Amino acid sequence: MSIKSQLQQKIDLKTKPTGALGQLERIALQIGSIQNSLTPELKNPSMLVFAGDHGLADAGVSPYPKEVTWQMVMNFCVGGAAINVFCKQNGINLKVVDAGVDFFFPKDLPVVDCKVATGTKNMLQEPAMSLEQCREAMSRGAELVKAEAAAGCNVIGFGEMGIANTSASSLLMHRFLGLPIEQCTGHGAGMIGEKLDYKTSVLKTVSEMYDPQTAEETLATFGGFEIAMMAGAMLEARNQNMVILVDGFITTATCLTAIQLDASVRENCIFCHASEEQGHQLILKHLDAEPVLNLAMRLGEGSGAAVAYPVIQSAVNFLNEMASFEGAGVSNKE
Amino acid sequence: MSIKSQLQQKIDLKTKPTGALGQLERIALQIGSIQNSLTPELKNPSMLVFAGDHGLADAGVSPYPKEVTWQMVMNFCVGGAAINVFCKQNGINLKVVDAGVDFFFPKDLPVVDCKVATGTKNMLQEPAMSLEQCREAMSRGAELVKAEAAAGCNVIGFGEMGIANTSASSLLMHRFLGLPIEQCTGHGAGMIGEKLDYKTSVLKTVSEMYDPQTAEETLATFGGFEIAMMAGAMLEARNQNMVILVDGFITTATCLTAIQLDASVRENCIFCHASEEQGHQLILKHLDAEPVLNLAMRLGEGSGAAVAYPVIQSAVNFLNEMASFEGAGVSNKE
Repeated sequence: MSIKSQLQQKIDLKTKPTGALGQLERIALQIGSIQNSLTPELKNPSMLVFAGDHGLADAGVSPYPKEVTWQMVMNFCVGGAAINVFCKQNGINLKVVDAGVDFFFPKDLPVVDCKVATGTKNMLQEPAMSLEQCREAMSRGAELVKAEAAAGCNVIGFGEMGIANTSASSLLMHRFLGLPIEQCTGHGAGMIGEKLDYKTSVLKTVSEMYDPQTAEETLATFGGFEIAMMAGAMLEARNQNMVILVDGFITTATCLTAIQLDASVRENCIFCHASEEQGHQLILKHLDAEPVLNLAMRLGEGSGAAVAYPVIQSAVNFLNEMASFEGAGVSNKE
Repeated sequence: MSIKSQLQQKIDLKTKPTGALGQLERIALQIGSIQNSLTPELKNPSMLVFAGDHGLADAGVSPYPKEVTWQMVMNFCVGGAAINVFCKQNGINLKVVDAGVDFFFPKDLPVVDCKVATGTKNMLQEPAMSLEQCREAMSRGAELVKAEAAAGCNVIGFGEMGIANTSASSLLMHRFLGLPIEQCTGHGAGMIGEKLDYKTSVLKTVSEMYDPQTAEETLATFGGFEIAMMAGAMLEARNQNMVILVDGFITTATCLTAIQLDASVRENCIFCHASEEQGHQLILKHLDAEPVLNLAMRLGEGSGAAVAYPVIQSAVNFLNEMASFEGAGVSNKE
C-alpha cells in the first residue's frame, strides 16, 4: 500500500466523521507524503526573509520610497516588524538576508550578507540583472537552505522585502502564465486608481521591451535579487525534501518561477494564505493550490506563512496524537 | 477620541501598508474595543465542551449511534479527541461538561457534572425539554463561566458533543432566521443523499408540531441540554466581558440563540471558522460575521475555535509588539 493510502487510512480511522477535519487532513496527507512517514514531524522551523532593491522603483511604481527597503531590514533587525512578532509567537527561527539592498548595513546587525549588487537595474532601460548575477543569487539562496537543513530544519518559510517587488512578480507571472499584464498587476503597497493605471502601463512597456527564452532568462530579466535568491532557496528546499511554506504574491510568483525550473518543487509547497493582491489568487488557481488562510493580508515579509504555521502544526498533531475509533472504544458509523 | 478610533490610529501607524494585515487588524480592533484598551491581552484561555444527548437521535437523524456521545466524552477524558490535541497545542485549558448525557460517568473521570437529565425528549413526541430544565441548564452554564472568569480567564471558547445536535441547531436556526428548513439542514456527521432527505423531512415534521413564542421557549422546544447550557454560558461570558470564541454550526446556532436573548453578546464574539455544514454559512452571513478560518472543517467539539486561537493571538500580538513608522525610523507613504 502506498504511503498516501496508508496515511489516508490512518486519517479516516481517527475519532471523527470521515473528512471532518477538512483541509487539515489534506495538509497532514501532504506532509506525511513528503516525509514518507505515518508520523511526520515539523522540526526547527525557519523563515528566511530576502531583501533586495529594484531599479524600477525609480519609475514610481510603489507609493513608498526606495529607502523603505533598508529601513524595514533595520526594523527586522530590532524585532519591530510583523514577521518578527509572528515568528517569535510561533517559535520560528527568523533570518534576514541582504540579497541586494541599496544600503550597506552595519556589521553588528544580524543581517546575513549575500548582497549580489546594490539593487537591480531599471528595467525601463536594461534587464534587471545579468544571467551571471541571477545564477549567483540562486546559488547563494541554495547555500543558505543547505545550512538550515544541516542544522536540523525540515520546514522552511520564505518571505521578502523590496520596494517595487510586486512589479517584478507581476512581470514574472505575466510571462509564465501568459495572462494579460492587467490581470497580473495589483495595488502592491497602495497603488490605487490612476496610480494603478500608471503602474500597469509601466509594466506593459517593460514587458514589450524583452523576449527572454528560458525560465532562467525570464527570472534574470524581470526578477529581483531577493526573488532569484528565494527561487534558488526553494529549489534546494525541494532537494532537501523540506516542507516549503509559501507566503503571499511575491513568494508565490517566485514559487511559480522555481516550478518552471523544477516542476517537482510543487509537491513540497504549502500555500499559506491567499492575499488581497490581484494576481495572487490567479497563480494559486493555476497551481491548484488551496491556501491555508484567507485573511485578506497583503504585507509580505513571510507574514502569512508565519501566521499559518500553527494551523499547519495542528494538521501534523492530529495525525500523530488523535485516537482511532478502535483505540478509544468509540463506535464508528452504523 | 473613542477607543475604536485610538485603536485604528495605532494600527495604521504600524510599520506596514495601511490595512495590510487584513482581518487580523479587524480582530485586534474588536478585542481592543472589548477590553477598552490599546494594549489588550488574552489571559488564561479556556474551552468548555458541553455534551448532551438528544431524544431525536432515536429517529435516526445521525449516522452514528447515540452511544457515541458518551464514548466521545470518555475519549475527551483520555486526551484522544481532536479538541484535546488542539487545546494542548495552543495552551487552552479544556473542560468537559456533562450537560445531559445518557450515561453516568465514573466519578474519577475529569467530567464536570452538570447533568440536567439523561438526554432530551424525542421532539417527534414532545418538546425537547421543559422551560424549567432549559433555565436550569442556562444557569449552570453561567456558573461555569463565572468560575472561569474568577480564575483569570478573559477569552473563552465553546464546543459541543451530542449525537443529533445538528438537528436541534437546524431547528433553532430555522425558527430564528425564518429560513426554510431545507436551507438549515445539512449533512451533519454524514447524512448524504436520501439520508439527508429523511433528516430534512423529520425536522420539517418537528417544526410543524410546535409554535413557541419566545426565544427561551424556542430553545426549550428544539434545543439540547448542551446547547441551552452553552447559551447560558455565552450570556455570562458577555456579562464578564470576555472574548467569546465561537466554533462551528452548532455553536454558532447557539450563539444566534444567545443573541436573541441579549443582542449585545454579538460584540464579544469572534467567529472562528466557516464549516462545511449547510446552514453555518447562512448564520454567519446573517450575523455579518467574518470567520477567521475557512478550512472546510465540520467536526464540532470546539475544534475550529482551538485551531483558530493562535491566529487570534497573532492579532493581539501585532497590536502590542509591532513598531510604529516613527519609532522604527521607517518612511511612511510619500
